[in-house]
Amino acid sequence: MASSAPSSSNDAPDPAPTNLRPTTYDSWCGVAHGCTRKIGLKICGFLQRTNSLEDKGRIVGSLKERQSSKNLLACENSEREARFRRTETDFSNLYARDLLPAKNGEEQTMQFLLEVVDILLNYVRKTFDRSTKVLDFHHPHQLLEGMEGFNLELSDNPESLEQILVDCRDTLKYGVRTGHPRFFNQLSTGLDMIGLAGEWLTSTANTNMFTYEIAPVFVLMEQITLRKMREIIGWSNKDGDGIFSPGGAISNMYSIMAARYKYFPEVKTKGMAAVPKLVLFTQNIHYSIKKAGAALGFGTDNVILIKCNERGKIIPADLEAKILEAKQKGYVPLFVNATAGTTVYGAFDPIQEIADICEKYNLWLHVDAAWGGGLLIANSVTWNPHKMMGVLLQCSAILVREKGILQGCNQMCAGYLFQQDKQYDVSYDTGDKAIQCGRHVDIFKFWLMWKAKGTVGFENQVNKCLELAEYLYTKIKNREEFEMVFEGEPEHTNVCFWYIPPSLRGMPDCDERREKLHRVAPKIKALMMESGTTMVGYQPQGDKVNFFRMVISNPAATKSDIDFLIEEIERLGQEL
Amino acid sequence: MASSAPSSSNDAPDPAPTNLRPTTYDSWCGVAHGCTRKIGLKICGFLQRTNSLEDKGRIVGSLKERQSSKNLLACENSEREARFRRTETDFSNLYARDLLPAKNGEEQTMQFLLEVVDILLNYVRKTFDRSTKVLDFHHPHQLLEGMEGFNLELSDNPESLEQILVDCRDTLKYGVRTGHPRFFNQLSTGLDMIGLAGEWLTSTANTNMFTYEIAPVFVLMEQITLRKMREIIGWSNKDGDGIFSPGGAISNMYSIMAARYKYFPEVKTKGMAAVPKLVLFTQNIHYSIKKAGAALGFGTDNVILIKCNERGKIIPADLEAKILEAKQKGYVPLFVNATAGTTVYGAFDPIQEIADICEKYNLWLHVDAAWGGGLLIANSVTWNPHKMMGVLLQCSAILVREKGILQGCNQMCAGYLFQQDKQYDVSYDTGDKAIQCGRHVDIFKFWLMWKAKGTVGFENQVNKCLELAEYLYTKIKNREEFEMVFEGEPEHTNVCFWYIPPSLRGMPDCDERREKLHRVAPKIKALMMESGTTMVGYQPQGDKVNFFRMVISNPAATKSDIDFLIEEIERLGQEL
Repeated sequence: MASSAPSSSNDAPDPAPTNLRPTTYDSWCGVAHGCTRKIGLKICGFLQRTNSLEDKGRIVGSLKERQSSKNLLACENSEREARFRRTETDFSNLYARDLLPAKNGEEQTMQFLLEVVDILLNYVRKTFDRSTKVLDFHHPHQLLEGMEGFNLELSDNPESLEQILVDCRDTLKYGVRTGHPRFFNQLSTGLDMIGLAGEWLTSTANTNMFTYEIAPVFVLMEQITLRKMREIIGWSNKDGDGIFSPGGAISNMYSIMAARYKYFPEVKTKGMAAVPKLVLFTQNIHYSIKKAGAALGFGTDNVILIKCNERGKIIPADLEAKILEAKQKGYVPLFVNATAGTTVYGAFDPIQEIADICEKYNLWLHVDAAWGGGLLIANSVTWNPHKMMGVLLQCSAILVREKGILQGCNQMCAGYLFQQDKQYDVSYDTGDKAIQCGRHVDIFKFWLMWKAKGTVGFENQVNKCLELAEYLYTKIKNREEFEMVFEGEPEHTNVCFWYIPPSLRGMPDCDERREKLHRVAPKIKALMMESGTTMVGYQPQGDKVNFFRMVISNPAATKSDIDFLIEEIERLGQEL
Repeated sequence: MASSAPSSSNDAPDPAPTNLRPTTYDSWCGVAHGCTRKIGLKICGFLQRTNSLEDKGRIVGSLKERQSSKNLLACENSEREARFRRTETDFSNLYARDLLPAKNGEEQTMQFLLEVVDILLNYVRKTFDRSTKVLDFHHPHQLLEGMEGFNLELSDNPESLEQILVDCRDTLKYGVRTGHPRFFNQLSTGLDMIGLAGEWLTSTANTNMFTYEIAPVFVLMEQITLRKMREIIGWSNKDGDGIFSPGGAISNMYSIMAARYKYFPEVKTKGMAAVPKLVLFTQNIHYSIKKAGAALGFGTDNVILIKCNERGKIIPADLEAKILEAKQKGYVPLFVNATAGTTVYGAFDPIQEIADICEKYNLWLHVDAAWGGGLLIANSVTWNPHKMMGVLLQCSAILVREKGILQGCNQMCAGYLFQQDKQYDVSYDTGDKAIQCGRHVDIFKFWLMWKAKGTVGFENQVNKCLELAEYLYTKIKNREEFEMVFEGEPEHTNVCFWYIPPSLRGMPDCDERREKLHRVAPKIKALMMESGTTMVGYQPQGDKVNFFRMVISNPAATKSDIDFLIEEIERLGQEL
């Protein structure tokens, strides 16, 4: 049914990681893929050639485990592992208090959870079924009034488990199928089955990342995965740092905190009043740097926006000019945020030239690769597996080249949590690196997906999305119904375009046309949501009026779904 | 099997929410419970008496839905809802790429997910089985070396689904059963079955809280639940604010940001350099305020610690003295954090007296009720349902009395996300209130638990934990093997005590005894983890040497588990 992993080809370049400064997207990708292939070859070669006892032992152990797992699967209703079968159960007289840990609650519990699973499996099945809608749209007031008995209000008294199951069905019914092959609305789309299994397990394990004590396996998985990510980025020192955080905005916030602490460690105790007036530089495309600037006490006035070219890439000369201008005014430039794959255009900032400027002025370079990912030159990197890699929300990592900064920056040494007299190596208690105290287990689903797909699997998945973006671009670029927002091929999976309704075709560019065109995308989007057939984002950007931003990160999408989107936009927009 | 909800009694006081300033725990509890009962009566009475068409319609609708749900459950293999049965499947030749969205991947996908569910159901079953261990402890290097084929390293090539299932089993095998009736190690314990179902559904829905567009139902559930929580707190104005955040530390951070923005809105644009030297006040028990102080640019030196009495409660006179001292030095007092249920002692700060001081000096009063919850007087409150209420991790809310501050403080108006020309009421796009961009759906499991238990169910659950704490206290307070850390009954479920091994009994208090006693709890804890029978926390506190801190938030725990813990500590400590 399925073959083993594809063999790696040997024709990729083999660059030394420290000298890599790809400037174009092609070289950037080439290097990233080359690096990936190289790691693949190394591991494959290693497994084929090695005869060391340890590795033999590991392979044999793994085979043994498989064997025992087979036995286990075959062993129906053994004492150790029960197999659960659903039976018809009347939930109308059962309540939450009848479930475990209630006495004799096991059977009801298993039946209830199996019933929930049935609802979820039906949802999963429909998610991938193109004959179903992406959403069944209702306005807030409609849902608040209660749709066909779906009552959102909370009450003092319990509802029966039967009603709880109905609530679960209704919650899914009135929601949005973000894994539907025709959901293109956000950067995070798709519903990965391994990731889903991982998240179900994570919920069931219900633990907390702050100490090794209560999350031993997850803490190690995080450490191993962060190291792997740093290797792929290309950082040569083994001792970098990082942590999974609740999303890219928080990862970016960590990068600013790390930079500030690195250059001005006294800020931790004395605050912003004790340091010079610091400024941060970024392009205007994502608000997370401004948000973090406000939160961390820099002030948004001190987040200086760098000009971009027509493709949405930072103009390095403008960055340098603004650094000099800030210095002349008595400010101290601290930090530059470059983006690898911007939110709207999917643009890659010229990382190498920015890195040179940062080196010249001794600034911290952070790369927000939340959407792009890959191989980079930076002091820190934000990498969101929940975007391009299709991991379930939430899954974002902040990676720092230098070890110890996160710990130094955030450590408060709470004695009640991070006791130093534990019996194990307490350096595995990672909680004091975080700005959170408790921290959700975001690692397992990602680790499990990596196990199940391998690096090559992720590579194929990303490549497929890139190919679909190219397909879309090629298909619409020369048609009168569409107009591209910028010239040239997309660098990422973002394809930005206007739909030109019949009434505006051939009309010369003027204020009237611009005003009318500005209203086209919102109208089509509203009709699209009403009909529930597909979802795609739109926004204005700088002096550009509202345009569609198509993004492809959903592994379920195929060329037919791209075709459908185009036809649907034309269908909904033909009367405008 | 199960009866309907217990009837509410009518003997509770009926206080006006605005005048409530309970000072003792008893009055505090009485008011909180009274309030709850009152709400219960109102709703019950309303349902019994009302004859309005709308409510009749709602009830009839709900009954209809139940009926149709029954039909649906009875309708095996209908076209709309399939019922899934597990069959023996060979996963050794199947890979992630064979699952949906792969063509013809449906059957494999369902079988794979059902197999995962079987693993999880077995784990759930064992979690509540007292004959199983709480954990099977291994040191980091042991797990990293690979236990019986459990290899944590990531590779380029995919693993078969069979191996993925083994990985899932192993991950649970080497983890910690935080829902085990004898796991007392953290404030968050237990594994609630409704919460688990909610979290599985949340993972499957895999969406993001930032806009109504893609999370319509969850956004409304959050709004309704936050309003309910504000009602229970007792805030009389309807227009408070709040948001669910990734944990109590972040919720506390929000409170400081809200206070700063309220008094000095210019901080958002101009940063900390433009405002006076601000100071924050808190007691020393939880590091989150210090952590937030460092992150937000106040500096930890400007987080002033207030003295506590022997029960771990803030001494109001010391707060006032320190406010005056700071003012005399030219600092501007901004914010006081009071705690309702401290982490170690479970102490309740004297909220009323602190509120009076805050009113006198015009300071923001935040109450960290992460562990305590309840009815409070404050400008903002942190309330962590993932602690005392047993909701699965993560689930924390920041509640603000005044509407609009979170939005004003954090809003950046990103045009690509929060378009103002959408067809629905965009005030439901809550993303710009958060410091995050994407935000995990933490609300659904909580909402579903509330539905399933009702307010009365949560009340019973908390009462049961309080009773168990009293049972433990009464049992050990007069025994020579134990010494209480402070006199008097516990205020919360925290019971703090030393175990006195035979060799130290009768020895007068001296440095030698103190040094020896300091090493007792870590040794017992290490032996406890090795034997895997139970888990409880310990720490030093101020001038007190290491003591055990027993906390009860696990609804699965019974008196027998408390007995077991005491016996186990005695068994492990008798040779010390």
